[in-house]
Amino acid sequence: MTESSPRPHPRMLLHWSPISPFVRKVMIAAHELALVERIERRRSVARMTAPNAALMEDNPLSKIPTLVLEDGTVLIDSVVICEYFDSLAGGGRIIPRAGMARWLELSRHVLANGLLDVLILWRNERDKPAATQTPLLLESFRTKTAATLARLERDIPAIADTPFGIAQITLGCCLSYLDFRFAEVAWRDDHPGLAAWHVGFCARPSAQATEIVNG
Amino acid sequence: MTESSPRPHPRMLLHWSPISPFVRKVMIAAHELALVERIERRRSVARMTAPNAALMEDNPLSKIPTLVLEDGTVLIDSVVICEYFDSLAGGGRIIPRAGMARWLELSRHVLANGLLDVLILWRNERDKPAATQTPLLLESFRTKTAATLARLERDIPAIADTPFGIAQITLGCCLSYLDFRFAEVAWRDDHPGLAAWHVGFCARPSAQATEIVNG
Repeated sequence: MTESSPRPHPRMLLHWSPISPFVRKVMIAAHELALVERIERRRSVARMTAPNAALMEDNPLSKIPTLVLEDGTVLIDSVVICEYFDSLAGGGRIIPRAGMARWLELSRHVLANGLLDVLILWRNERDKPAATQTPLLLESFRTKTAATLARLERDIPAIADTPFGIAQITLGCCLSYLDFRFAEVAWRDDHPGLAAWHVGFCARPSAQATEIVNG
Repeated sequence: MTESSPRPHPRMLLHWSPISPFVRKVMIAAHELALVERIERRRSVARMTAPNAALMEDNPLSKIPTLVLEDGTVLIDSVVICEYFDSLAGGGRIIPRAGMARWLELSRHVLANGLLDVLILWRNERDKPAATQTPLLLESFRTKTAATLARLERDIPAIADTPFGIAQITLGCCLSYLDFRFAEVAWRDDHPGLAAWHVGFCARPSAQATEIVNG
């Protein structure tokens, strides 16, 4: 009887890139939640200066990750996609469902995610021709990065004491992005707690399967 | 008997500004959820080029809104604060608790919120000395804004058909911000559906109490 065969899970299309730290967040979530087989990845380039017309048919902001469900519904933003994945896996696994644990996890996520936003803007500014750079902006990005790393170093014992979820996923992607694009920041020198925690992050299979490599 | 007196609700400190569209989101949410009396507002200026040291003691990213609870816990990001407010009011009132209604509401929120992000960057770029502007960036911001407004115009019947929540709140703040900083975009001309919906948004007491005015 064909009715007794389990219906295969619907597949999802993910606008993806191997070097986007925001895409890496959702791919780590997919690995942790055993959803990778259900995701079809499409390489989509999203540069600030070059809107991608094909990507914009699904997400007019021209940003990745963007997820297209089998019925055509489009979900955007890495944390929305991560929470959707969490719900497919039963819910409450990488984002607590309710209570102060939820607000703390989401605020810690934003701290690391906001630092990633700063780093993306910093890189765009840094890579402009020198005559068009704005020194005040470069200094502002440097100040915010230092302050946020200091706060994360203070908080890492509490963060590491929670289940591995969206806050730790994003922190790991952020620190690895510093290695990838801002080696000169040498973040490990002044942040031994973060450095020790990052070793454990990098050893997870989900992190190894999604590692961003130069090339 | 003093024990029978209801304990007053704890108060919260909100790093606030009268002209930030992201702060306006959480203040509209507070009005809709009858939480305004519990919020103490502190004027905190957050400019991209000038980190605010006092604000950074609570949020090292130097961004507003930032919410400090009575026990010192810091919640950051406007959508996290809005969902926290929603939980204080019982939950599920401005963000659906679960299911596809939730993912659609959050994705529509991100579309309007991402457009606000584009507009903030556009304004920063536009206001630089002409010699340091990057024409490709200005063109990219213009393209993304046009495409996102077109998508919102297509979707506004479906958005307007949902309960007034984080998606509509953010869309209203975004369109009003266009009026405030980008009058020359003249967004109403090509988007009659959005224009008609915005009239109703502006008539809400929560929108009127938080209106951003020149001055």
